[in-house]
Amino acid sequence: MNDEGKIGVAVAPEDHPWREGICNAVARGGGCVVALDEADALIWMAKGDAVLSDHLRPQMRWVQFRSAGVEHWIERGEIDEGRTFTSTRGAYARAVAEHAVALLLAASRRIHDAARVSRWEGSVLAGRLLAGSTVGIVGAGGVGQELVDLLQAFQVRIVAVTRSGRSIPGADESLSATKLRAVLSDVDYLVVSAPATVMTTAMVGGAELEALPDHAWIINVARGSLIDTDALVDALANGTLGGAALDVTDPEPLPEDHPLWQLDNVLITPHVANPKSAQRPRLEAFIEENVHRFVTGRPLMGVVDLEIGY
Amino acid sequence: MNDEGKIGVAVAPEDHPWREGICNAVARGGGCVVALDEADALIWMAKGDAVLSDHLRPQMRWVQFRSAGVEHWIERGEIDEGRTFTSTRGAYARAVAEHAVALLLAASRRIHDAARVSRWEGSVLAGRLLAGSTVGIVGAGGVGQELVDLLQAFQVRIVAVTRSGRSIPGADESLSATKLRAVLSDVDYLVVSAPATVMTTAMVGGAELEALPDHAWIINVARGSLIDTDALVDALANGTLGGAALDVTDPEPLPEDHPLWQLDNVLITPHVANPKSAQRPRLEAFIEENVHRFVTGRPLMGVVDLEIGY
Repeated sequence: MNDEGKIGVAVAPEDHPWREGICNAVARGGGCVVALDEADALIWMAKGDAVLSDHLRPQMRWVQFRSAGVEHWIERGEIDEGRTFTSTRGAYARAVAEHAVALLLAASRRIHDAARVSRWEGSVLAGRLLAGSTVGIVGAGGVGQELVDLLQAFQVRIVAVTRSGRSIPGADESLSATKLRAVLSDVDYLVVSAPATVMTTAMVGGAELEALPDHAWIINVARGSLIDTDALVDALANGTLGGAALDVTDPEPLPEDHPLWQLDNVLITPHVANPKSAQRPRLEAFIEENVHRFVTGRPLMGVVDLEIGY
Repeated sequence: MNDEGKIGVAVAPEDHPWREGICNAVARGGGCVVALDEADALIWMAKGDAVLSDHLRPQMRWVQFRSAGVEHWIERGEIDEGRTFTSTRGAYARAVAEHAVALLLAASRRIHDAARVSRWEGSVLAGRLLAGSTVGIVGAGGVGQELVDLLQAFQVRIVAVTRSGRSIPGADESLSATKLRAVLSDVDYLVVSAPATVMTTAMVGGAELEALPDHAWIINVARGSLIDTDALVDALANGTLGGAALDVTDPEPLPEDHPLWQLDNVLITPHVANPKSAQRPRLEAFIEENVHRFVTGRPLMGVVDLEIGY
């Protein structure tokens, strides 16, 4: 708390290009931008490869990250129990879900094939209707729920798969991740939109890919680590999987000599589901709201739970 | 009418591969499949380049075409005033509208660019959110109305442009085609989904393309003739238009040496918005319903009006 009794919030690193806008968001939320040593809270604007610990001070009660995924900080043990850490979980959900629909429709309508040819190939390039197909959605947090909402008008059958198996509004079927493999034979498009945790690493592996129909497509808008990349390459090359539309890969960036670049039935967008142009206003609005909650003592959005891993 | 008092319906040409399914649809609708000379009605399964007149008989009161667009028969004067002609207007509207969304999202999310590269280009390939943009829809018949419905959840502003200017359910603004040019400066994506008529030929020409913002995309799922192709190529090459996603072109098929194939900001799908795999069940259902209406004396769907030209 500073001299005027306001809550002090530090924004670091100091040289981040979005700093001014974030400081304004803190002020709108009722906080006062201060130095690290005086801060009750820290808005940490660096990406996952930057070390947070040097910027933490004992008096800080809250740390806000700038991304929805916080697995890097968890893995490095930088998230301790003495204070609250929050991700921007949900802030970019709509943008990512919109990209998932773009990839779903690209897969069904063979947009990737059409983009690659320079002559009229008539019915050779005809795709299929998305309507009438079954879309499996793994993970129904912010992105998954927004995706369910966007797909309501598309006449698809939606199977939502979550940790708990709770009933997802708008889904035709909701089930627990332990039952994933059993439903895969009915799935035409499997969208991966779950957080990267110890539990979800390679949750789509050889057995799951095998269980999908040969015409099925995988769409990944979550994290590359959720799919076993070697098993994916094998299934795509063997023709036991229809294709893959990936906004995220493992490793990332995907090296130029990676076999995924060579496959006709693969469409890769370079982790742009949440485009930069859309991030800044959403991030500022999220931080304004969370600062306001912190200042007024209400529950924060996006609290990281080490037990579930996000 | 045949011996049993049933309405006689001929299905021609005799050797059409879908004939059996269409005959079954006629029977389900309450008609009786008969030869041309005994028929009260004709289901004409040939495409626009086939001559209909040889198959018409004086006693036929109704002719059903297999496509939504009937401009070829109108131009050749094969649609006379003595009987009722019907298109399949609306039968494939959902399929075509779904393809329009695929092209809209491909344009905004730069799916065509991503499909063409074989290395991770990071933010170079970042697209924009469709959410927050303004989508102009020219023609709000079956396809246009279905498109408005599909876009409801996408947080876009919809401007619907029709002949009459009537209020379109779900559109944020509805106006008459005479006011098209005035609104174009606000449009980020212009979807062309009007029928091909004398009135709509080249309705998107140099002046309209000029009025659109430099970042705007044109999406055409109607007929190539609605856009002045030379003006389109100029605008795309000069950078005064963001891009074009075209399922239909003029001419069609587009010749291999056509400049549209050479432009990076063009995505062409070869007239597959209504894919063959989806046509047959919809056509059979449409014909069953129209035969049922004919047999029971109710108004037919898709009646061709020579005055408005479709």
